[in-house]
Amino acid sequence: MGAARFLDGLVHVLPQKQITIIGNVGDDTEIHGLHISPDLDIVAYTLAGLVDSVKGWGFQGDTFECQDTLRKYGCETWFNLGDRDLATHIYRTQQLRNRNTLSEVTHDLIHLLGLRVRLLPATDDPMQTHVLTDNGWMHFQEYMVKRKTIPRVHRVKFKGAVSAKPSMGVVESIAKATGVIVAPSNPVVSIGAILAVPGIRSALRHGKRKVVGISPIIGGKTVKGPADKLMKACGIKPTAVGVGEFYRDFLDTLIMDRVDAGLAPKIEHLGLKPVVTNTFMRSLKDKMRLARIALDELEN
Amino acid sequence: MGAARFLDGLVHVLPQKQITIIGNVGDDTEIHGLHISPDLDIVAYTLAGLVDSVKGWGFQGDTFECQDTLRKYGCETWFNLGDRDLATHIYRTQQLRNRNTLSEVTHDLIHLLGLRVRLLPATDDPMQTHVLTDNGWMHFQEYMVKRKTIPRVHRVKFKGAVSAKPSMGVVESIAKATGVIVAPSNPVVSIGAILAVPGIRSALRHGKRKVVGISPIIGGKTVKGPADKLMKACGIKPTAVGVGEFYRDFLDTLIMDRVDAGLAPKIEHLGLKPVVTNTFMRSLKDKMRLARIALDELEN
Repeated sequence: MGAARFLDGLVHVLPQKQITIIGNVGDDTEIHGLHISPDLDIVAYTLAGLVDSVKGWGFQGDTFECQDTLRKYGCETWFNLGDRDLATHIYRTQQLRNRNTLSEVTHDLIHLLGLRVRLLPATDDPMQTHVLTDNGWMHFQEYMVKRKTIPRVHRVKFKGAVSAKPSMGVVESIAKATGVIVAPSNPVVSIGAILAVPGIRSALRHGKRKVVGISPIIGGKTVKGPADKLMKACGIKPTAVGVGEFYRDFLDTLIMDRVDAGLAPKIEHLGLKPVVTNTFMRSLKDKMRLARIALDELEN
Repeated sequence: MGAARFLDGLVHVLPQKQITIIGNVGDDTEIHGLHISPDLDIVAYTLAGLVDSVKGWGFQGDTFECQDTLRKYGCETWFNLGDRDLATHIYRTQQLRNRNTLSEVTHDLIHLLGLRVRLLPATDDPMQTHVLTDNGWMHFQEYMVKRKTIPRVHRVKFKGAVSAKPSMGVVESIAKATGVIVAPSNPVVSIGAILAVPGIRSALRHGKRKVVGISPIIGGKTVKGPADKLMKACGIKPTAVGVGEFYRDFLDTLIMDRVDAGLAPKIEHLGLKPVVTNTFMRSLKDKMRLARIALDELEN
């Protein structure tokens, strides 16, 4: 979510054709037999200006007629699927069944939504983020949407990640980029799920271009979502310092909020350059400002 | 369509629990990766009082948001799928993928729609009605919906019918019924597709209970749909006599319209009892009247 907001700023300060986005697929799941890619869709709908900005997902003004009927048929409907949103899932599912890769389908959808960025799923292989809670292991979407992040999380695993390969272009785009930005997103289940695909983290470590990260943690808390809880569950301090430590092996610069200015020396101590600014994105202006700061850091 | 209208009358004069309907699946097809059973749905929606009675298919007042978006994604959308209707197709497809039979899914849907009739697909095996037109072979739905029955039809075939088995209960219900009614439906692609499943026609031929048919042809024409054209293409006269000849081996009585009263002697000549009445169903009263006449004939 934070990533989509940041990217919305980025596409307003940089031509879309210059941007390659590596998207998390650990949240992917199958609902009613349809393949859902929540993170890829949020990014695509946001950049296309079609997202429901209040909810942060789905199409603005979407209806829920199909889902209401599925509920009458006794189906579980905790994962909300709007009628227009369903078209994306139906299209994707059919293309995947026709032996297209997730990358190919995503490429098509991005184009169909009128976008010019490259959106690459971290992997085309099946990979799912599961969390161990007081109620047992469950898919991250079940924890996030059905259980509203209420159960306590003890562990996080990326099922299938060990044997997953980065999708075509991921490692190459990291290697050839003039700079890499790690968006202000959940370090465990969003960025972490991308880093869990073998080859991606080492690609980030190598190369001469800079890697600039933005801490999603402001004053020890996430703006939205369960990043702080999940970081604790994984033994990562839910602070900008925890983020810095987690990204330390590949990061050059960490952009952190003014609220956390006092932590800047600790970031420096990690060998990273701290950049203190307002990271809370309310308006498009805020998003664009943060994008410009990140781009400036890549050039400096 | 004529069948659904007739059945709507029947459920108003006979308890639903006493009615077993054998439905055509030759029209079944896959659209956007979803299994569609047009005839089973029309019957179920009609009897549940939910059908769009103007169109004759789909849910009354349904919206088309998903389909509009699929159209934007470049998908063919000649087969109209309403948002609520989609729930049926999504539910059915998922249940079939989970190794349930079409009979089992249909049983569930009937129950979920609050109905108490038995609706049995003629077969659970894959079977599709195809027509040879001036534009080549095509699925019946393509001819019917996409091409609006405009191309001239030369031949009809039921792909997969030879190796299809009647679904569980079909032969038994015909054998044990106190009477069988052949609804006023397309003799070639609706009734004919059911008869094409090995075992069904011979089940109709045997047993002591009566078989009463209703001619869908009034004055040499169908009320709706391409029955007359398809009958011609199959070498069947598009008249009540043609219907009688086609059903002759298992029929006892043919109910035909007043307009065709002059053909009654020819029906008698086929060894069938002609019953002349008004078969055109405008109101529920018309439907109920026709249902009562058919039931009376079963008893006489």
